[in-house]
Amino acid sequence: MLEIALINGPNLALLGRREPEIYGDETLAGIVSRLSAEAEGLGVRLSAFQSDVEGELVRAVGEAGERGGGLIINPGAYSHGSIAILDALNAFPGPVIEVHISNVHRREPFRRRLVTAMGADAVISGAGPMGYSLALSLAVNLLRR
Amino acid sequence: MLEIALINGPNLALLGRREPEIYGDETLAGIVSRLSAEAEGLGVRLSAFQSDVEGELVRAVGEAGERGGGLIINPGAYSHGSIAILDALNAFPGPVIEVHISNVHRREPFRRRLVTAMGADAVISGAGPMGYSLALSLAVNLLRR
Amino acid sequence: MLEIALINGPNLALLGRREPEIYGDETLAGIVSRLSAEAEGLGVRLSAFQSDVEGELVRAVGEAGERGGGLIINPGAYSHGSIAILDALNAFPGPVIEVHISNVHRREPFRRRLVTAMGADAVISGAGPMGYSLALSLAVNLLRR
Amino acid sequence: MLEIALINGPNLALLGRREPEIYGDETLAGIVSRLSAEAEGLGVRLSAFQSDVEGELVRAVGEAGERGGGLIINPGAYSHGSIAILDALNAFPGPVIEVHISNVHRREPFRRRLVTAMGADAVISGAGPMGYSLALSLAVNLLRR
Amino acid sequence: MLEIALINGPNLALLGRREPEIYGDETLAGIVSRLSAEAEGLGVRLSAFQSDVEGELVRAVGEAGERGGGLIINPGAYSHGSIAILDALNAFPGPVIEVHISNVHRREPFRRRLVTAMGADAVISGAGPMGYSLALSLAVNLLRR
Amino acid sequence: MLEIALINGPNLALLGRREPEIYGDETLAGIVSRLSAEAEGLGVRLSAFQSDVEGELVRAVGEAGERGGGLIINPGAYSHGSIAILDALNAFPGPVIEVHISNVHRREPFRRRLVTAMGADAVISGAGPMGYSLALSLAVNLLRR
Amino acid sequence: MLEIALINGPNLALLGRREPEIYGDETLAGIVSRLSAEAEGLGVRLSAFQSDVEGELVRAVGEAGERGGGLIINPGAYSHGSIAILDALNAFPGPVIEVHISNVHRREPFRRRLVTAMGADAVISGAGPMGYSLALSLAVNLLRR
Amino acid sequence: MLEIALINGPNLALLGRREPEIYGDETLAGIVSRLSAEAEGLGVRLSAFQSDVEGELVRAVGEAGERGGGLIINPGAYSHGSIAILDALNAFPGPVIEVHISNVHRREPFRRRLVTAMGADAVISGAGPMGYSLALSLAVNLLRR
Amino acid sequence: MLEIALINGPNLALLGRREPEIYGDETLAGIVSRLSAEAEGLGVRLSAFQSDVEGELVRAVGEAGERGGGLIINPGAYSHGSIAILDALNAFPGPVIEVHISNVHRREPFRRRLVTAMGADAVISGAGPMGYSLALSLAVNLLRR
Amino acid sequence: MLEIALINGPNLALLGRREPEIYGDETLAGIVSRLSAEAEGLGVRLSAFQSDVEGELVRAVGEAGERGGGLIINPGAYSHGSIAILDALNAFPGPVIEVHISNVHRREPFRRRLVTAMGADAVISGAGPMGYSLALSLAVNLLRR
Amino acid sequence: MLEIALINGPNLALLGRREPEIYGDETLAGIVSRLSAEAEGLGVRLSAFQSDVEGELVRAVGEAGERGGGLIINPGAYSHGSIAILDALNAFPGPVIEVHISNVHRREPFRRRLVTAMGADAVISGAGPMGYSLALSLAVNLLRR
Amino acid sequence: MLEIALINGPNLALLGRREPEIYGDETLAGIVSRLSAEAEGLGVRLSAFQSDVEGELVRAVGEAGERGGGLIINPGAYSHGSIAILDALNAFPGPVIEVHISNVHRREPFRRRLVTAMGADAVISGAGPMGYSLALSLAVNLLRR
Repeated sequence: MLEIALINGPNLALLGRREPEIYGDETLAGIVSRLSAEAEGLGVRLSAFQSDVEGELVRAVGEAGERGGGLIINPGAYSHGSIAILDALNAFPGPVIEVHISNVHRREPFRRRLVTAMGADAVISGAGPMGYSLALSLAVNLLRR
Repeated sequence: MLEIALINGPNLALLGRREPEIYGDETLAGIVSRLSAEAEGLGVRLSAFQSDVEGELVRAVGEAGERGGGLIINPGAYSHGSIAILDALNAFPGPVIEVHISNVHRREPFRRRLVTAMGADAVISGAGPMGYSLALSLAVNLLRR
Repeated sequence: MLEIALINGPNLALLGRREPEIYGDETLAGIVSRLSAEAEGLGVRLSAFQSDVEGELVRAVGEAGERGGGLIINPGAYSHGSIAILDALNAFPGPVIEVHISNVHRREPFRRRLVTAMGADAVISGAGPMGYSLALSLAVNLLRR
Repeated sequence: MLEIALINGPNLALLGRREPEIYGDETLAGIVSRLSAEAEGLGVRLSAFQSDVEGELVRAVGEAGERGGGLIINPGAYSHGSIAILDALNAFPGPVIEVHISNVHRREPFRRRLVTAMGADAVISGAGPMGYSLALSLAVNLLRR
Repeated sequence: MLEIALINGPNLALLGRREPEIYGDETLAGIVSRLSAEAEGLGVRLSAFQSDVEGELVRAVGEAGERGGGLIINPGAYSHGSIAILDALNAFPGPVIEVHISNVHRREPFRRRLVTAMGADAVISGAGPMGYSLALSLAVNLLRR
Repeated sequence: MLEIALINGPNLALLGRREPEIYGDETLAGIVSRLSAEAEGLGVRLSAFQSDVEGELVRAVGEAGERGGGLIINPGAYSHGSIAILDALNAFPGPVIEVHISNVHRREPFRRRLVTAMGADAVISGAGPMGYSLALSLAVNLLRR
Repeated sequence: MLEIALINGPNLALLGRREPEIYGDETLAGIVSRLSAEAEGLGVRLSAFQSDVEGELVRAVGEAGERGGGLIINPGAYSHGSIAILDALNAFPGPVIEVHISNVHRREPFRRRLVTAMGADAVISGAGPMGYSLALSLAVNLLRR
Repeated sequence: MLEIALINGPNLALLGRREPEIYGDETLAGIVSRLSAEAEGLGVRLSAFQSDVEGELVRAVGEAGERGGGLIINPGAYSHGSIAILDALNAFPGPVIEVHISNVHRREPFRRRLVTAMGADAVISGAGPMGYSLALSLAVNLLRR
Repeated sequence: MLEIALINGPNLALLGRREPEIYGDETLAGIVSRLSAEAEGLGVRLSAFQSDVEGELVRAVGEAGERGGGLIINPGAYSHGSIAILDALNAFPGPVIEVHISNVHRREPFRRRLVTAMGADAVISGAGPMGYSLALSLAVNLLRR
Repeated sequence: MLEIALINGPNLALLGRREPEIYGDETLAGIVSRLSAEAEGLGVRLSAFQSDVEGELVRAVGEAGERGGGLIINPGAYSHGSIAILDALNAFPGPVIEVHISNVHRREPFRRRLVTAMGADAVISGAGPMGYSLALSLAVNLLRR
Repeated sequence: MLEIALINGPNLALLGRREPEIYGDETLAGIVSRLSAEAEGLGVRLSAFQSDVEGELVRAVGEAGERGGGLIINPGAYSHGSIAILDALNAFPGPVIEVHISNVHRREPFRRRLVTAMGADAVISGAGPMGYSLALSLAVNLLRR
Repeated sequence: MLEIALINGPNLALLGRREPEIYGDETLAGIVSRLSAEAEGLGVRLSAFQSDVEGELVRAVGEAGERGGGLIINPGAYSHGSIAILDALNAFPGPVIEVHISNVHRREPFRRRLVTAMGADAVISGAGPMGYSLALSLAVNLLRR
C-alpha cells in the first residue's frame, strides 16, 4: 500500500490553542485522525510526524524518501529560510506538496519569502486545515499518474 | 444557485500549446468544460472569463463581485505586479482562490514575487490543471461555511 | 471654452461602494457631476473619462493633449508603476494635476512609490473627493497664468 | 475663533530669493500676509511660525496641538527623514496638511522619500505658493466637518 | 510569402509629435510605409499593429505566432516591466527582434531595466527609426538561415 | 507560587569560558544559582533550561507557556533569524523579556537584526549577567501588575 | 557625590499625554521626580535635561561628559538616525545606558534601526517608565565596579 | 576617406573557438576581413583593434577619437563595469555603436548591467556576427547625416 | 595523540545516494573510513560525527573544542546562515577547516553566502570528497606549526 | 575686504579632547586663531561659527550667503544625511569648500555617504587640521579667479 | 608531460613584503620554486606567470588553455569583480583551481564577493602558501581521473 | 632628496581636450611641469607617471613604494571600483593623497562610490588642477612631520 508521509514543523503541536483566529481551532491530532481516514478511503496509508527541530524534519524527509510514496509537509516557520529542508525535499524521490494553513502572502513580509517551496511540486496556502485534504488528493493523484 | 467565477489572465488562452512541459497539454476550453461539470456536481454554477488585458480582469472581478459568490482567479503574469487586480480582489465580497498551474516558487526570481496573492484567501500553485478543481472544492466549502 | 479633462483609473468606478472608510461614500458619477458644475462656475468645460485599462488611460491622455487645456488624473493603482502613463503625461502640453483620494503615504509601502507623479505638475493626496475640486481650481489657475 | 497653525521649515525664510525658478518669487512674509487675509475671510485665525531647527518645529507642532485647531506644515528638507516631526504630527489632535511648493516627485531621488507625510491627513505638492491656499481651505473644511 | 509582424506599443502612435529631440520627427505611419516597401524588396510581407494596451500587445504576439514568420516589436514603456509580453515572446516560434528608437541605456534608471528583452533574440536600441530597418534585415536573415 | 522560566540558547553553556572579554567570566550555572536566590527573594520560582537546538527552545517556550507565569529568554545566535522562536514567543501568554549579555548593537551588522525581539515585551542588551537580574525584577513587576 | 545625567529627546515632554497606550500615562516630571528619589537612595545625584533639538542633546551629552559620572539617555526619534548623538556618546567617558519606553523592535521598520545604540554600553527597550529605574541601578552598578 | 574604428575587447580573440553555441563559429579575423570589404563597399575605411586589456581599449578609443570618424566597439566583459571605457566613449567626438554578439539580456544577471552603453549612441545585442554589419551601416548612416 | 574532529551537517548522511552528479557516489561511511586511515598515517586520530540538527553541530564543536586538536567541518546547508555554528567555530581553540564537496560559488545565489566560513581558518570548496583529505593534511600542518 | 565664513558642526567644539588619535590634539579655538592669521596674510577676513544644531548651521550658511564671499564648512556628523544643509549650500552664492579632519572614506560605512558634499565646490578629507588651511587658500583662489 | 599553469594576479609580486601578518613571509619566487619541485615529483611540469594587469591574466589563461593541462589561479583583487577573467576560466578546457592565500570570508565585505570563482572547479582559501600545494595535488588528481 | 610620485590614471592624458567645462583646459603636461617647479621650491623631487591600464597603476604604486617618499594619485575612473589599486595603496609605506579634479560627489551616482580612497590618507576632490598643488604641500607636510 502506498504511503503518504505527513510532516509538520515547529509550533504546529500547538494547533487549536495558538492564535485560533489565524490557525483555526482544530488540533493537530484531530487533523491527523481525519486525514488518516481520508487516506484510507483513497487506498493509501498516512504516516504522521511532527517536530519543532529543523534537523529532525530533515531526517524525517530523508527516511520517508527511503520508504517511497508521497510527502505532505508544513515546514511552519522553517519555510522561510531552511536550505537544509529544501535540500532534503530536492532529494525526495516522490511528489512533495507543501501546505500552509494561513495564506502567508497576506502576512508579515518575512513570511512571504518561501525557501522550502522551491523543493515542492505544489504549494497550498491559506486553505486552513482543509489544505491538508486537498494536498492528500493531489499527492495521490500525482503518485498514480 | 451560487456562482463561482473563473477568471484567467494573459497567455492562458494558449494553454495546451504554450510550453506544455510546464503548463501541460490540456486546453483552457477543456479545463473550463471539465470544471463546469464538476461545479454542477457540487451544486454551483461556473462562469468563465479570459482576457490578456489587466484592466479587463479588474473589471471582470468587479462585476463578479456584484453578482456575489466565489472567485477562482489565475492572474498569470499579472500576479507578480498588479496592484490594480489586488485592489479588485480586496473589494471582492466572497472567497477568492488564486491558482497557478506551475509552482511559481521553482521558477525565475521575478515569478516568486506574488502581489495579487495578498488579496486572496488561498493560493494553490503547481498542482497543474487539477489546481482548478482543488480551488473549486475549496471555494464551495468556504461559501457554504 | 477651455477644457479640463478628468481621467480616472482602475477600480474608481466602484467609488462609494469600495472600502468607504478609505475612499468615502460619494460615487464617481456624483463627483463628476458636482465637479462639472464647479467647472462651469469657473468658466471651463469638464470632460470625464474612466477606465480600468492602463492603455486606455494612455490613449485618453494623448487625445486630451490634442484637444488642449488642462488635465486632472487619478491613475489609481497604476500610479505606482506605470511608465506608459508617465510617458503620456510628459507628452501632455498643458498643466497636469494628479489626485489621490486617500493619503498614499499613510498606506502600504508599495503605494508610497509614485511613478506617474513624475509627469505631473502637482499632486494632491488625501483630501478625499474634495481633492478633485482643489485640483480643478489649481488647473484653471495654471491655465490662466 | 478656530486657529490654523502655519509652520514652515528650513531654508523657507529664503523664499523669493532662493532658486526662484523652483520656488517662485513670492517671499514667506508675502505668503503669510496673503494667507492671513484668506483665513480671516474663512472665519479662522492664522498663526505663523518658521524655523530652520528640526526640534523647534517639533516643539511648535506640540504647542499648536495644545491650542487645538488645524495645522498646515511645510517641513522643507526635514520632510525626507524626520521621524521626530512625524511623531509630533501623529500626536497632533486636529487635521494636518503637508505642503510642498515644488513637486518633490519630479526632483532628486532623495526628495521622493516622504517621511513626515505619514503623519499628515493630506499632502499637496507642486502647486507653488497657491498650495498654502488650497491647504487652508481643505483644513477649514476638515475642521468644520 | 513569409510574414514579418511589426508590433508597436504605448505612445508610439504619437511618433513625430512627442519629444522629437528624442524620438525624431518621422510618424509611425511613415515608418510603417517605408518599412513595407523595404520588406517587399526583401521578399517578405509586413503586417503592422499598434496598441497602447499591454494585453492587446500580448494577444497580437500570440496571433502573429500562429501565422508564423518573424516578429519586430517595440514594446515602448512596457519593455521595462511586462512579464506578460515576455511570456508571449517566449511562446513565439520564430525570431524576435526588439527595437527601441532611443538608446534606453542613456536615459532614466527605470528605463535601463529591460524585461521583455529576455524574450527576444536580439535588441537594437538607439538607432532611431533606422533601427526598424536593421531589425527587418536581421529578422529576414534569421528566418532564411 | 508564580514561575519565571529562564531559557538560554546556543553556546551559552560555554559562558565563563567563551570570549570572557565579551561575555564575562561568570558561568551559566553561577548565574542560574544567583538568579534562583533572587527569585526566591521576590517570591517567585525560577525554572532554568538551556539548549543549543532551536527547536528545543521552541518546545521549551511552548511548555513554559502551558505552566503560566513569565519568561526570560536569551536566544543567543538564534535571535537574529529564528521565526520559529518568534512564533513561540508570540504564543506565550505571559510577559516575555529578551536578554543579551553583550550590546548587540555594537557588534557585527548581522547581530543587529533582532527577529525574536519582535515577540518580546522588553529587551535588555549589554548589561552583562546583571541583565538577567534586571529582567527578573521587570518580569515579576509585569506579572504582578 | 557621583552624578547620573538623565537626557530625554524629542516629544518626550509630551509623556503622559501622547499615545498613552504606547507610552503610559506617567508624565516626564513624574518620572524625573521618582527617579531622583531612587538616585538619592542609591547615593548618587540625578541631573535631568530634555530637549526636542538634536544639537542640544549633543551639547548636553558633551557637558555631562565634562562633569563625569554616568549617562541615561532616551534619544527618542533621533535614536534611529543621529550620527551626531552617536559621536557624542562615543566621546562620553563613563557608562551610557540607552532607554526606550516602548519595545522599538515591535513597531514600524524605521524604528528598528538603532544608530545611537552603537554608542551605548547597554540598551533597555520596552520596560515602560520602569526602564529608567533599571537603567539607574545598572549605571550605578557600572560606575562602582 | 572616413574611418570607422572597430575595437574588440577581452576574450574576443577566441571567437570561433569559445562557446560556439553562444558566440558562433566565425573567427575574429574572418569577421574583420568580411567587414573591411563591406566598409569598402560603403566608401569608408575600417581600422581594427583587439585587446584583452581594459586600459588599452581606453587608449584605442582615445586615439580613434583623434583620427575622427565613427566607432564600433564590443567591450566584451568590460561592458558590465568599466567606467574608464565609458569616459573614453563620452569623449569620442563621432558616433559610437556598441555591439554584443549574444543577447546579454538573456544571460546571467551580471551581464544585464550595461555601463559602457551609457556612452554609446546605439546598442545592438544578440544579432551574432551580423551585428557588426548592422553597426557598420548605422555608423556610416550617422556619419553622413 | 592529536585528535582531528570531523563534523558533517544536514543531508550528508545521504552522500552517495543524493544527487551523485553533484556530490559523487562515495558514501559518508566510506569517506570517514578512508580518512581515518589517512589520519593514522599522519599520526593523528580522527573522530567523526554527523547530525542533521544545527544545535547538535554547535554542541559537537563545543565538545571537540574541549578535547583540543583541530576541526574539519562541512556544515552543509547551515553554512549559508548559521550564526550559532559561527559562534561555536569562533570559540574553537584550534585550527578549523571548512569543506564543501561541490563548488558553492557555481550554484544558486543563496549558496554563495558563506556565514560559518567567517569562523574558519581555511575553506576548501569543490574538491569533491578529496577536499576532506586536503583539509586533513592542512589541519595537521597547522596543528604542528 | 572679502570675507571667508568658517562654519563648524556638531561635536567639533570638543576638538583636541575627543578621540585625539583620530582628530588630533589641536583645539577649535587654536585652529580658528591660526586660520585667522593666515586669512589676514591672504588679504581676507575670517568669520568663525560653531554649533551642534543642524538648523543653526543652515541659518549661518544663509546669513553668510547674504554677506557674500566664500565658505569653509565642516558639517561633522550632519555631512552624512542633512538635506537641509545641502539646500543651504546650494543657495550659497560664492565658493563652498567642505572639510573633514579625518578621511571619512576609511571609517565606518555610514560615514562614507556624503550628502552635503553635493552642495560644495570642493571637498578635502583626511588632511587633519591642515585641511582648513588648504581650504582657505583654495577659497581665496576661487574668489579671486 | 602534462602542464599545470600557475597564474598569479595583482600585488602578488609583493608577496613576502606586503602585510606579512596576512600573506606570510614567503616570496612568490620561493613559492614557485618549491611548487615546481613538487610538480616534478608528481610527474607534471609547472609554468608560472604573474601580472598586475587584468587583461594579461585573461590572455595568459587563454594561452594556457591552448597548451592544455590544468590551471591554478590566484586572481588577487580581480577575484571580486572580473567578468573578463571569469569568461576566460569558463573557456579553459581543463580543471581550474582558484587559490586565495588568506581566508577572504574573514575580511572586508567587498572581498567576500567571489566572481571568478564561478569559473573554477574548486576554490581553496586561507590555507596560506600551502594552498598552492593542495591545489597542485588536486589539479593533478583531476587531470588523471 | 625626498621623492613625491605623481600617478595619473585613465583618460587623464586627454586633460585639456576632454570635457573642459568639467576638467579645465590645462593639459597634463602643463600640470606636471608646473607641479615639478613647485616641488623643487619645496625641496622635493617629483616623478610623474600616467597610464590608462589599471595594472600598470598598481605596478607603479608598488615601485614608488620601494623608492620611498610620498604619493599623489588620481586613479580616474578606477577610483570607483579598483580593489587592486586599493591593495597597492594599502601596501604603500608613505603618505598617500588621492586627487580628483572635479567634485565627484556632485556627479553621477556611480562616481560617488570611492574604493581606492580607503587606501589614502587624504582625498581632495573638486579643486581643479589646483588640487594637485594642495596635495603636494600636504604630502610634503606629512613626510616632514
